[in-house]
Amino acid sequence: MKRYLILAEGKSGDPHYGKTARGVLRYSQHPTVAILDSTRAGETEDGIPVVGSVNDALCFNPTTALVGVATQGGRFPPAWRDLIRSCVAKSLDVENGLHQFLTDDPELAELAVRHGAELRDLRRPPADLDVPTGENLELDAQVVLTVGSDCAIGKMTVSLELDREARERGLRSVFVPTGQTGIAIAGWGISVDAVVADFLAGAAERLVVEGAEEGDLLWVEGQGALLHPAYSGVTLGLMHGSAPHAYVLCHLAGSNAIEGYPEHPIPALSELVELHERASLPARPARVACIALNTRALGEAEARAAVAEAEEETGLPADDPVRFGAARLFDAVLRIGAVRTET
Amino acid sequence: MKRYLILAEGKSGDPHYGKTARGVLRYSQHPTVAILDSTRAGETEDGIPVVGSVNDALCFNPTTALVGVATQGGRFPPAWRDLIRSCVAKSLDVENGLHQFLTDDPELAELAVRHGAELRDLRRPPADLDVPTGENLELDAQVVLTVGSDCAIGKMTVSLELDREARERGLRSVFVPTGQTGIAIAGWGISVDAVVADFLAGAAERLVVEGAEEGDLLWVEGQGALLHPAYSGVTLGLMHGSAPHAYVLCHLAGSNAIEGYPEHPIPALSELVELHERASLPARPARVACIALNTRALGEAEARAAVAEAEEETGLPADDPVRFGAARLFDAVLRIGAVRTET
Repeated sequence: MKRYLILAEGKSGDPHYGKTARGVLRYSQHPTVAILDSTRAGETEDGIPVVGSVNDALCFNPTTALVGVATQGGRFPPAWRDLIRSCVAKSLDVENGLHQFLTDDPELAELAVRHGAELRDLRRPPADLDVPTGENLELDAQVVLTVGSDCAIGKMTVSLELDREARERGLRSVFVPTGQTGIAIAGWGISVDAVVADFLAGAAERLVVEGAEEGDLLWVEGQGALLHPAYSGVTLGLMHGSAPHAYVLCHLAGSNAIEGYPEHPIPALSELVELHERASLPARPARVACIALNTRALGEAEARAAVAEAEEETGLPADDPVRFGAARLFDAVLRIGAVRTET
Repeated sequence: MKRYLILAEGKSGDPHYGKTARGVLRYSQHPTVAILDSTRAGETEDGIPVVGSVNDALCFNPTTALVGVATQGGRFPPAWRDLIRSCVAKSLDVENGLHQFLTDDPELAELAVRHGAELRDLRRPPADLDVPTGENLELDAQVVLTVGSDCAIGKMTVSLELDREARERGLRSVFVPTGQTGIAIAGWGISVDAVVADFLAGAAERLVVEGAEEGDLLWVEGQGALLHPAYSGVTLGLMHGSAPHAYVLCHLAGSNAIEGYPEHPIPALSELVELHERASLPARPARVACIALNTRALGEAEARAAVAEAEEETGLPADDPVRFGAARLFDAVLRIGAVRTET
């Protein structure tokens, strides 16, 4: 059993950059025993102690340091190298979710061998990827992909909540990880944003093929956004390679521009619904089943009003599955699925 | 000055796989002195002798062997390694457009050093790519991207023909290469299908930024297709990263399914026009200016009928720029550009 020390130096208060950390805290089967952030040492987060140094973390007996910070483009903040070296020197394994690979660093690799630590690059793609074979259209499983109006608004969380709801109802349900946090949580997967662009759909196909060996209902973690100025290619490759039967469209209530790109407006939800449906492969036309609204910044009354507004605008069921439970969204997906198996 | 020997073993008669070879033959400033294809030795193609072996090619005094075969997914046919070794042993440089890199092969690299030959992997991406900076929205140049209903139907050719037309009219026009053949032809560029998926748009932005240093009118070589089951991610990343003002939609007259994927139908041209316009970034709404029809399989009367039909279906100007000249399509693009600068 792993016991995580999450490295979140200077970032653990940041809702956007702490994506990996929060995902693992909430959904991993492996416990997090400490969070490292010297700017908040002595505090706790969800009951987990925040420590100021690797040395201070050791009394909580971690086995594995997790690089819990996702930066734009996935590069390493230079100061972090020292931190990772300290972890390795204390024989902690290190799991890294950035595009820059620890195992490509000869000095770190040598240090890891010397201290019996393992370096794991969660975003390192398999070496044998290729284009899709067409197997994605022949699976028995129902596939549901989360899509969204932006990055880092909860697509992975929505997939995880719907997977949990399905399993609680006794279904053979599988969460299919497509990014570093999902991989850290589930222990398998491919970070599709890190593959050679030509093999995006091929990587996504491989994930649903593998998922279908484990279950009948696959919740594929979405990536990026179809109108995101940086990451849209990943989104469309994932849409076509995973060949979903239905989408759940995720949106951060109240946001009207892409995070970090204020000159890029987010269109109306109804326009996004139509765009995703039209951009689906003609061989696998998929419909948006429902809207998953992230209302974390709102009070309860405003959250309910935002949900009602999204329903009225799109004509689709909407809800915040983290706040109000995943049952209504799950039912909406089932209805779409049922329609689809009859046609 | 380079003198090309194009390696097309067993492939030079194949219209799909010979893409690289035909592009270089038609548009490179560097002459092709021979084509290697033992199945057609003794023939000529466009006046170029086809030879059966590297030894037979040497009397034509080539300097550079070009791997002119683009395979699905870009892997090396195993038998080709011997062929490439023979070229290197004769001190020919080798330019390679596949995803598999020659310079990663220690034995070939050593052989190249020994024989004073250079190995150039045209698809090797720059090491310092990242996400877009937003500079793509701030360029003075007008940007036109070719898009299409499928791969390998002439998007690069259409961009090259329109660039030539623009330069003949005295404009500071630049062809912007985004794939291995374009790079072989123009001597610069990034093969966007070979970059890490997260950096697709960033790579495309870098290309238009570099292109804008050389001209006022950029013809960006398109890749893939928005509804291609394997390569759509590359297409959308290129669309958003190059931030075009207008598209030219390319289509192979008469085709109604994706080449090699018969279960994936091609929708109506009017639907593709609307999809590309809707999938444009809201910050840079782009319109389809015209339809470039590839009529190479048709007689002249059928070709003219196909052009008329495309015009009627879409309400846009259509033409085959290779067969009938690029003037009409160029005028259509100019009209869209003029409209755009007034608004």
